[in-house]
Amino acid sequence: MSTQRPPGGNSPYRGPPARRSDAPRHEPATEQPAAPRARPAGETRVFGLNACLALFARRPQDVRKVWLLESRVGALKSVLAWCVKNRLGYRVVEEEDLDKLTATQHHEGVCFDVLRRPPLTVSDLLAAAPAEPKASLLILLDGVGNPHNVGAVLRSAANFGAQGLILPAEAPSTLSGAACRVAEGGAEVVPLAQAGRGEDVLQTLRHAGYRIAATTPRDGLGLFAQPLPKRLVLIFGAEGEGMSEALIRAADLRLTIPGSGEVESLNISASAAVVFAEWWRGTH
Amino acid sequence: MSTQRPPGGNSPYRGPPARRSDAPRHEPATEQPAAPRARPAGETRVFGLNACLALFARRPQDVRKVWLLESRVGALKSVLAWCVKNRLGYRVVEEEDLDKLTATQHHEGVCFDVLRRPPLTVSDLLAAAPAEPKASLLILLDGVGNPHNVGAVLRSAANFGAQGLILPAEAPSTLSGAACRVAEGGAEVVPLAQAGRGEDVLQTLRHAGYRIAATTPRDGLGLFAQPLPKRLVLIFGAEGEGMSEALIRAADLRLTIPGSGEVESLNISASAAVVFAEWWRGTH
Repeated sequence: MSTQRPPGGNSPYRGPPARRSDAPRHEPATEQPAAPRARPAGETRVFGLNACLALFARRPQDVRKVWLLESRVGALKSVLAWCVKNRLGYRVVEEEDLDKLTATQHHEGVCFDVLRRPPLTVSDLLAAAPAEPKASLLILLDGVGNPHNVGAVLRSAANFGAQGLILPAEAPSTLSGAACRVAEGGAEVVPLAQAGRGEDVLQTLRHAGYRIAATTPRDGLGLFAQPLPKRLVLIFGAEGEGMSEALIRAADLRLTIPGSGEVESLNISASAAVVFAEWWRGTH
Repeated sequence: MSTQRPPGGNSPYRGPPARRSDAPRHEPATEQPAAPRARPAGETRVFGLNACLALFARRPQDVRKVWLLESRVGALKSVLAWCVKNRLGYRVVEEEDLDKLTATQHHEGVCFDVLRRPPLTVSDLLAAAPAEPKASLLILLDGVGNPHNVGAVLRSAANFGAQGLILPAEAPSTLSGAACRVAEGGAEVVPLAQAGRGEDVLQTLRHAGYRIAATTPRDGLGLFAQPLPKRLVLIFGAEGEGMSEALIRAADLRLTIPGSGEVESLNISASAAVVFAEWWRGTH
């Protein structure tokens, strides 16, 4: 007798496949090599000592190739041992080789090729996050493209226990090597999700008991004026343009970090750290 | 009778060639081959739109030369009017020229040569800061060389009303152009001081009623565990090595930003913003 399976889902508790535009992304990122995705699963390059060590600590099986400087052999001993044991290629190379491989001088002496990990759907992210009424912090980026900013936000998000970072549907679905390096391991700690095209992410988040806060340089509620919601989604906009007006209006609250007014605003990574810290303060 | 000419100059209003530190530079940027052009010792190069605008707003008389892209003429209208009125050279140049002049692509379409402003002594800084028992925040950097970190700290420091940034005696006495750009005007807002060689800066600061706090990634007092001193000097160490053990021991208190422990520490600019915000919260 044949077993009936929900089409497009290999686990009954996941429910039937959606017919929405985000339908194909129901499978858990780590087990499904993205067969249903438009983009085939490939590899991506990660560099930076802490970024590589954090990746190796959490998903060594995803490492495909390792390059390092002689001077990093000590720091990466466990990685090299694993490579030998698993017959994985590694190469001790010169500084210039790493410069070329990573297209930067800021590689910190090590670089991995690793399996790309497709981002989660927002639903999968919510399924993994603490359920209502537990405290939970999520971050939604609106057009923050600068990899240094994304990386810095991830590092602080990891420090302050954020349970996920949600990228817009139109963003690239893989973090850049520079973002991972700057995140210093935070990219492995904070789960990454991506909105589906046309998906009403804010509504989905509200249904899960979150309040949506936009951080704006002025005219919002003072950050320290009231306790922050314990289940909180923080939206950060692009440096320069800021976030879309529509998104600011759609938020449940607008938060402004107080200050002297002597500079126009804080850098996004500074803003993020200050608001994350405030959330941490209220929930720990 | 022979005609006397200024040696090396074919136009009398140009004055003699550069033997003085403030000697004018005659050649237009576009004809100059590359970034490291000889600049008089008393001048420095600043770039970035907000950095240049903040400098112009506070000390227009220090501007010596202006280069800008055509697309920045509107944003810099008041600067150009001032140049015309004061017979100061400005040139509309191409992107590549600015790339060379600033040795970066992150110039935001404008670059000034300006008079170097020597840092204050610590005593002068204290004389200008609010007297005891008023609240006051100073920052002491211990070996933070990365200009992006210095700039980011300055931007946050300006936002949270810090009254000064103190550099170690051995640091270069001028902020780099990159630090000024990243500070987005904060470098003009927060007075810069430099310790003298052998000066006991901590003692001087204590005499002025400040408490000295070192921020350390672990083992310090939790940042939110007690109110911060209202007159506070915050020491930040270099990324990587952290600050010197001697300085940590010499501090009156050690502060640690709490967190999940999932990443080793916060970036220095994130740490700084979080601690500055906490000081602001307690004093405003």
